[in-house]
Amino acid sequence: MGKLLIVGTVAIDEIETPFGKTGKVLGGAATFIGLAASQFDVESGIVSIVGDDLPDAYLETLKSKNIDLTGVEIVEGGKTFYWKGKYHNDLNSRDTLITDLNTLADFRPKVPEHFNDSDVVMLGNLHPSVQLSVIQQMKTRPKLIVLDTMNFWMDNALTELKEVIQHIDVITINDEEARQLTEEYSLVKAAEAIQKMGPKYVVIKKGEHGALLFHKEQIFFAPALPLEEVFDPTGAGDTFAGGFTGYLAATNDLSFENMKNAVIHGSNLASFCVERFGTERMENLRRHEVDKRLHEFKALTQFDIELK
Amino acid sequence: MGKLLIVGTVAIDEIETPFGKTGKVLGGAATFIGLAASQFDVESGIVSIVGDDLPDAYLETLKSKNIDLTGVEIVEGGKTFYWKGKYHNDLNSRDTLITDLNTLADFRPKVPEHFNDSDVVMLGNLHPSVQLSVIQQMKTRPKLIVLDTMNFWMDNALTELKEVIQHIDVITINDEEARQLTEEYSLVKAAEAIQKMGPKYVVIKKGEHGALLFHKEQIFFAPALPLEEVFDPTGAGDTFAGGFTGYLAATNDLSFENMKNAVIHGSNLASFCVERFGTERMENLRRHEVDKRLHEFKALTQFDIELK
Repeated sequence: MGKLLIVGTVAIDEIETPFGKTGKVLGGAATFIGLAASQFDVESGIVSIVGDDLPDAYLETLKSKNIDLTGVEIVEGGKTFYWKGKYHNDLNSRDTLITDLNTLADFRPKVPEHFNDSDVVMLGNLHPSVQLSVIQQMKTRPKLIVLDTMNFWMDNALTELKEVIQHIDVITINDEEARQLTEEYSLVKAAEAIQKMGPKYVVIKKGEHGALLFHKEQIFFAPALPLEEVFDPTGAGDTFAGGFTGYLAATNDLSFENMKNAVIHGSNLASFCVERFGTERMENLRRHEVDKRLHEFKALTQFDIELK
Repeated sequence: MGKLLIVGTVAIDEIETPFGKTGKVLGGAATFIGLAASQFDVESGIVSIVGDDLPDAYLETLKSKNIDLTGVEIVEGGKTFYWKGKYHNDLNSRDTLITDLNTLADFRPKVPEHFNDSDVVMLGNLHPSVQLSVIQQMKTRPKLIVLDTMNFWMDNALTELKEVIQHIDVITINDEEARQLTEEYSLVKAAEAIQKMGPKYVVIKKGEHGALLFHKEQIFFAPALPLEEVFDPTGAGDTFAGGFTGYLAATNDLSFENMKNAVIHGSNLASFCVERFGTERMENLRRHEVDKRLHEFKALTQFDIELK
């Protein structure tokens, strides 16, 4: 059993899709990462910050999945990061209606002592300086540091982003962001360029079109499972990251072959996340459902051509 | 060795991409289908119509691949179907600058006697009534009839399209067209709806995002091979169809498992087609290159998770 440190937001979300509205619900990158990672045999802890307005039940949900919350600072009188968004009809794009950083604006992450020797660190989407400060607090170099980021930081903190990605092993990024970061249209070329910036492994997320893993000359691809209905895409990318890092921490095998499996596990879990609003599906996801869907992934992608 | 009948355009294309212009070159659906299918051990013949302006060298190119051209009507004094198009910078969209139907406007396909017992019929994109007339000329019901179509016929000949697809086994169609035909956004639901219209198998082409094969509850997915550079997407869909039907005709195995392999072979060949302008890459494609890239497809998609 490996130790997984998760850094990211624990948030209050309000989501509207063509299928309905949620009202205020538990959200945030660290939340989705933690819920996904809890499907594996890992000792995981979250470093985050919230206000005391966050319902106790939300924290209890995470604790019930054996996620250590020692590193979640609760600011008395403070308000929790709040995000309200509305998805368009095709669910491929969304408008952010409200982003209130609240306590997140002054987030100085503190890694608890019993997690500064973590095997795997998953840095959820945050200001790159915040991500870097977590790396600097680790007592020993983690076996694997994975970082998620987004175009907002490319626009507003590119220098800091380029600094932090020199210190990581894997970056997860979506296709448009990979193009923006490298000014390369071809994802193959973009992944090559990103590897020169630091990370030896590049995961390019393509949403409903799956995810690509690049390492030197090697490429692996996992499709998104075709679903009858996508209900709410919120958290799918973080769920992927949580499955990816949770599996790697649990198996303690960082070979490229095992990273392929991690990509499949991440994609598999993300396929559940989008079936209900917010965290609902991930909170109630059962092991036998996960196992069953892995069979579907295998049937979807595996073939038997005799090669010459 | 199976017999494959190919119906579709043999055309003169003029293509402009961000990488350059071609001048007039050999093109057309039947051309790309035939070149791809010639990679397999098949007896293939094209039914089409051209004018006597078509350079002899173009027909010689096809003959040199052992494609029977008895069914290609050459209209004296007629002009060959001509298409001129310009791709946008991302190569995902294009403007049609000129479409001159010419002899194609009066195409009454005649299936040569030695091909009216073909095992597999590949109906390239044409007016659905023309496609239907080919099916009606077959002496025996082919083991497999595959039809490609496009949104133009949904807009202009929907009744005829719905008629012909009642008589086929496999339809190949792109994602937006599947949505248009069924008014379902989910491709899973769209494929279900199309199966109710006739074809037991539905291939949904997603361009650079790969292709999906649907049959009852089963789904198989093949990615497009990630390439450093896509040079000219013209003919990629037809090359896919030619690889798909060529492989099935050659192996004479119409099981779903073998159709998976056919989808991989089609995707594999399409990955070459886009590397050069027009038919250039497909004309000069060597068996060992095809075999080598199949290994890349396997590395790209195959994983080894122990399932429970």
